[in-house]
Formats: sequence, C-alpha cells, structure tokens
Amino acid sequence: MSRRARGGATRLDSYVDRYAARTLGMTASEIRALFSVASRPEVVSLAGGMPNITGLPLDVVGGAISDLVEHDGPAAMQYGSGQGDPGLREQICDVMRLEGIEGHPDDVVVTVGSQQAVDLVTRIFCDPGDVVIAEAPSYVGALGVFRAFQCDVVHVEMDGDGLVPAALAEAIRAVRADGKQIKFIYTIPNYHNPAGVSLASVRREEVLDIAREADVLILEDNPYGLLGFDDGPHRALRADEPDGVIYLGSFSKTFAPGFRVGWALAPHAVREKLVLAQEAATLCPPSFSQLAVRSYLSTHDWQGQVKAFREMYRERRDAMVEALEDMMPRGARWNIPNGGFYVWLTLPDGLDAKTMLPRAVTSRVAYVPGTAFFADGSGAQSMRLSYCYPTPDRIREGVRRLVAVIEEEMELRETFGTMPGARRERLASRGYESPNTDLR
Amino acid sequence: MSRRARGGATRLDSYVDRYAARTLGMTASEIRALFSVASRPEVVSLAGGMPNITGLPLDVVGGAISDLVEHDGPAAMQYGSGQGDPGLREQICDVMRLEGIEGHPDDVVVTVGSQQAVDLVTRIFCDPGDVVIAEAPSYVGALGVFRAFQCDVVHVEMDGDGLVPAALAEAIRAVRADGKQIKFIYTIPNYHNPAGVSLASVRREEVLDIAREADVLILEDNPYGLLGFDDGPHRALRADEPDGVIYLGSFSKTFAPGFRVGWALAPHAVREKLVLAQEAATLCPPSFSQLAVRSYLSTHDWQGQVKAFREMYRERRDAMVEALEDMMPRGARWNIPNGGFYVWLTLPDGLDAKTMLPRAVTSRVAYVPGTAFFADGSGAQSMRLSYCYPTPDRIREGVRRLVAVIEEEMELRETFGTMPGARRERLASRGYESPNTDLR
Repeated sequence: MSRRARGGATRLDSYVDRYAARTLGMTASEIRALFSVASRPEVVSLAGGMPNITGLPLDVVGGAISDLVEHDGPAAMQYGSGQGDPGLREQICDVMRLEGIEGHPDDVVVTVGSQQAVDLVTRIFCDPGDVVIAEAPSYVGALGVFRAFQCDVVHVEMDGDGLVPAALAEAIRAVRADGKQIKFIYTIPNYHNPAGVSLASVRREEVLDIAREADVLILEDNPYGLLGFDDGPHRALRADEPDGVIYLGSFSKTFAPGFRVGWALAPHAVREKLVLAQEAATLCPPSFSQLAVRSYLSTHDWQGQVKAFREMYRERRDAMVEALEDMMPRGARWNIPNGGFYVWLTLPDGLDAKTMLPRAVTSRVAYVPGTAFFADGSGAQSMRLSYCYPTPDRIREGVRRLVAVIEEEMELRETFGTMPGARRERLASRGYESPNTDLR
Repeated sequence: MSRRARGGATRLDSYVDRYAARTLGMTASEIRALFSVASRPEVVSLAGGMPNITGLPLDVVGGAISDLVEHDGPAAMQYGSGQGDPGLREQICDVMRLEGIEGHPDDVVVTVGSQQAVDLVTRIFCDPGDVVIAEAPSYVGALGVFRAFQCDVVHVEMDGDGLVPAALAEAIRAVRADGKQIKFIYTIPNYHNPAGVSLASVRREEVLDIAREADVLILEDNPYGLLGFDDGPHRALRADEPDGVIYLGSFSKTFAPGFRVGWALAPHAVREKLVLAQEAATLCPPSFSQLAVRSYLSTHDWQGQVKAFREMYRERRDAMVEALEDMMPRGARWNIPNGGFYVWLTLPDGLDAKTMLPRAVTSRVAYVPGTAFFADGSGAQSMRLSYCYPTPDRIREGVRRLVAVIEEEMELRETFGTMPGARRERLASRGYESPNTDLR
C-alpha cells in the first residue's frame, strides 16, 4: 500500500523540509518554461549555445566508431580508469599544446563535459560561504555550480579587452577586507560566454601576476579557444603558470557535445583530489565516449574540421553583426566577437531584457536575458545573442523580429514611461559595466 | 614565470589548506597501490566487480551503433535533455516492469551510471552530519559518496535473508534519540554487493512498513536485480511504495558499463531536484551513450543476452563455491549467493583480511578486505570475493592460492599468536554480524 493511497494525500510537499541546504539554491530558472516554447520550429532561437555539428562527416565518425567496436569493443564497453583513458589524455596534451601548454597526461582528468570539471573543482575547494571571483557577466552553467555549492560569487568588471586587472585586484582586496576566503578566480579568457570578448595579451600577464601576488588559484575555462575567427589560438594562462592555474577544456565545440568529453589539467596534488571526486561522482567517465573521441582524433583531420567550423561560425557572426548594424535602433550597444558563439547586446536605456522576453517569444524570437549571467540579479538591460546554431538567413530574420519588439518597447516607454528611474540608477551603481560599452 | 620556478619550492602542499571540508574525507584507499599490482595478468583477481562482457555480440552492438550514427547521428552527438532521452526513459520503464514497478518516464532521470544517481541523491538530501542508514556491510562506492558529502553512516545488521528489520527499527530509534536527522535508508535488496544475499520477500513488507512508520525515504539500489540464478526477479521495494522509495537501476550489468548509463526513478518533486542537480553536474548525460543503449535494447534480444550472462555467472559462482567447499580450512564461513557477483567470506577467528592482503597479492591472488565496506573500519575478518570476471579455472586457481595464504597465516598465528585479543573483542562488540554467519 503506498503512502499516497493510505494517507489520501501525496508526500510531495513534505520533501521540502528534507533537502540539503545546498538544494534550496537549486531552483528551476523562471525563463525555463519560456524556453520550451522557444524550441518550437517557428521561433528563431538566438538563445541556445548548441554548437552546429551538421558539418561533421557522419560517414567518417560512423567508420571510426565501427572500427572502435570491432577492434577495441571490450575495452570501450568496460569500466575504465577514474582519471580517464591514458591514450586520450595524451591526445589532450597535444590539443593543449596548440595554446602553448606543456602538460603531462598524468595531470589530466577526463570529465563528463567540462561542466563536470567545474563541478568537481568546486566540490573539492568550496565550503559554503567561500568566495569565487568571476567575470561580470559569467557563464550561466558555472554560476549554477557555484550556487549549488553555496559559494558567494563576486563579479569583476570586464571591458572590450576582457577582465579588468585593476578591478580584479580591488575585488580581491575588498573580499579579504571583509574577512572572506577566496577559493579561485573563474575566468573564460577566450571568446567569452556570454560576453564575446577575449582577454588581451598584455592583461594575461597582469592577471597572472595579481593572482600570484594574492596567492589565489585561477580556474581557466576554455571551451572556445580554437574557434577564433581572425587570430590564431591565444596563449593560455596555464601556459605561463603551471602551479596556480587549473585549465579546463572540452571536445564539445571542436568535435561534438553528445559524447560529453571534457577535461581538467591541474597541479598534481589537485589532480589527485579530482580523481577521487570523479570516482565518487561516476566511478569513471564513459569509456565508449572517450575511445570514440580518441578514434576520431587519430583517424580524422580534426584540425581541418575545426577550421571548417570556424568558417561557418564566422559567416554567422557576420550575418548577425550586419543585421544588428542595419536594424538596431540608436542606444543599443553590442560587441563584435572575433571568435566563439556570442554577442552581448545592451538595450537602449530604460528597457529590460527579462521583462521583454515573453513578448519576444510571442514574436517568435528568443534570447537569454542578461540576468542569467549574474549571480546578483543584475544584467537586466542586456541579453546574450547566439549565432552558432541558426543559418545566416534565420539569424537576420531573428534580428528583424527582435528589433521590432525592441522598437515597440521603446514606443511604449515613450508613451507610458514604463522603466522606473530608481531601477536604472540601481543597475548603474553596481560598479561594473557591460563589456560592450566601449565597443561598436 | 611559474610559482615553482619563482619560489624555488612547489605550492603543492599549500593546497591542503584550501580544500573544502568535504575533501578531507576524500583520501585514496590504502589498498589502492596494491590493486595496481593486482591488475597484473599473473594475479588472479577476485577483487574487481567488473562484469564479464566478453559474451556480448560485438557485431550486433557495432551494427546498432553504426545504424545510430547513420540515421540519428546529429541527435546522438548533440547536447540532450538534462533528464535524459525520452525514448530511453520509456524503455527504462519497460525494464523496471520486470520487477513489478509501474513507473512513468517523466519520473526517470538518466545518470552517468547508477553511481552518479547515488551522488545526486546524496547531494540534494544530505547536509554535513546527516545520517544515512546502510547495510553492514555496504557498497564501497556508495560509502565513498556518503563520506564525500560528510554524512554519518549508521550500519544495520544483515543475515542470510538480508537486512534485519528489527535492527533497522532499532537503528532509526537510536539515531533519533541521539537528535540526529536520518535522510534515507540505502539498501541493495538483491544479490547484495558485497554480501551476496537478498532481502527475503516477507522482510520487504516489514522494511517498507518500518520506513513508512518512521517517515524515512528508502534509496533502493538495484544493479543486479535481473541476475538471479535460481529465482526470477524479486519484486522491487519501489513496486509497493511509489512515494517513499527512490529506485536506482543500471545497464552496466545487463548490457555494458562503458556507456555509463544508469537511472533514478523518483517521486516527482525529488525528480525535479535531481534534474537540476544533473544539469549543474554535467549539463546532460551523454546523448551518444543513451542512444546507443536505446538502439541496442530495441534491435537486440537483450533479455536473451541477460539470460546468457546469468548462466555464465552461475557457472562461475558454482566454480567458486565448490572450490571453497573443497579447500577452505575449518572456521572460514561464506554464503552461497543465488545471483550477482559476490561471495562474502569470513576468515577463521584471529585472522585479519586487511593485513593479510599484501601476502595474498605476493601469492598472486587479490580480494577486497571487508573494511572497505564499512564506514567505521570494522569488517577486518572478512573479504569480498568476486567470481564475475575470471574463468572457472582461474577462480579455482585463485581460491587455491588464497587457501594457501590463509593456512600459512593460521600456522603463523598458532606459532606466534599474532592476532591481539583486544582487537577481536572490539570487532565482536559492534553489534552487527556478518551476513554469512548463519549460512553454510
């Protein structure tokens, strides 16, 4: 006899009192329901960050995987090491060498996408109340992890050259003056998600110096590093600081996300803890996925494929930026990314991307409001626009629809004055600017 | 310039002060180093729990996966839902129906092996100091998770019929009298790892009644449920209690572990939290793995394959039990499992399986000492013997070597009296017996 049958009522509500404190921070995003609408085919989604893998040669991938099953099937289908396949870890070191990193395969831990690497690093370092420093804005998936482990996120201003070193130094000082413990600086130096900017070369040295001086670890998250449109790969922070940087990489954007293969390269002592955390979390990452990636990398011109991806994304970036330039009303600002998937757009003063979203979805265009990328609820005037997935024509159509919504909002505002001044002031006083303010 | 180069010393030690409190419990097992020796081919390993997948038809699996890449490649290689593929979740409900469960696909969350399901459930429920009740002994991988989330594990006695209901009721009473919060009862009702026993039918009702009465959730972990040698699948606890049981399943033993596909079936409110936790942990479980399993299940007689697995494991169980009966000295006790992978063997009084392990490995046989399966360091007189992986001949050879080591230990003990009486008393006073005491 079930409790439901016996008691006449469900026990569902009673779970609320039983969850861990960390679970209170795990709430479904308020924009989640909208996104199920946004995934309908008639909606142009500029919201998602799905890589466009239609260019992958399915015959090559299929052949590589058939070979794998035939020649290495028992290993691919068996449990593997908690640290990940040794052959793949060697290949990962080859990939990182493109960014100047001399890493050892023994310091690499394979993870279930680099998302899991963020999760495991946070798990081993962060007690409730510990501070993580992150760019403003920052990657929504990392903020979710930090929240799930009850960290306090302190945002640091970016501009068109990425993280502002002076602001970083000041944030470290202020947090410590507050008596709080900083566990690491989380940064996406290349083709930032969502800000679209990269950390300038000269700043890389400065950021490393500040972190060394303050004795704070850097968590360098780099899923887009090989997807630059105009310049070669930037030199990784990790390339110049093996002991103070944990570097995260991923095959989700250079090959395909469905295998969920990412990695962390960490100082040896940290790597040991990461492996123990991985064993607790999953016993081991999927062997099949790892060997499939290994087989793809070793049988295919994967760098040629990455070049093809870059060219496709560049074309889409161009389509979006041209459409924005042609159509966006005065007062809107955005950056021109030279790699990656995202444009960060700030609306004309007085508009709110979050409250505008339902109307946009009704007008069959979707984006992610800027608030998703801040731990403190700011960012409402901005939005992330992704150009990675739709075709150039759809991107232009999406921008056209978005512009119509924005213009309607501006008219409404002029007529009724819907944006309260108090709110505008509050946003401006947070002390960090949108990264696109000095661009365009 | 790296910190190492600059400071002349590595920073490795300094990380020790930076880890989260939960990380202090993550230490490499002291027997880990031995196991790297134990994996050498000349050692008969009765230690590992790797399923023997040599029986899988590689041509069928290869064909299913080639088909998948050809017809559904873009979906298999793309991000998927955090909850898991809907088609696979329907098939999972069909699998669970074999054990009497009427579950809804919307209440299923796909996980990276059922290990990750244990991790996610613990993550959402357990604050430091919360109590998890578990069998004595219990699954080493689950104990690792509970330790990583700083839970207190309270063990409850088993006998040849599994968990002892009266002991469970008493443990709940005692924990609550201590003012502690019980978050769930973790139990493996079928072909227990490591104890080899199953929960008797009549006890299933009793355990459910005790949990209902005390209003405590049950976490039912069931990786071996379809691997019974003599009886059909047992009726799951979840089959009779949809609201108070979270059920965990896995394809690692019925198909192959290398895909890392497991699942949790949970009451709806809990399922929502599990999906949020999964999104933080990995964004989504691997699409490729899920679609590979889906394709295998729908194109192959997977139940016929499970029957073949059962027969293979039964033959190996027989080889091990016969060898034990033929060779083990008086005073050793073990159970005769009627499913799964494991025999739980208790040594003659005065012997210690943990201190004996290095000598066993030197004699080219490996096992897991019982201490690995207790949160409180007890279990030293026992060991887990796995018959799943080696051939029957190797199993007999392994038992022969093990018996030689035990007999040598017994001689040493008779000659020198190496087992301190104080320790023996301490073990006996813990209040739970080995599950094999009333068997054989």
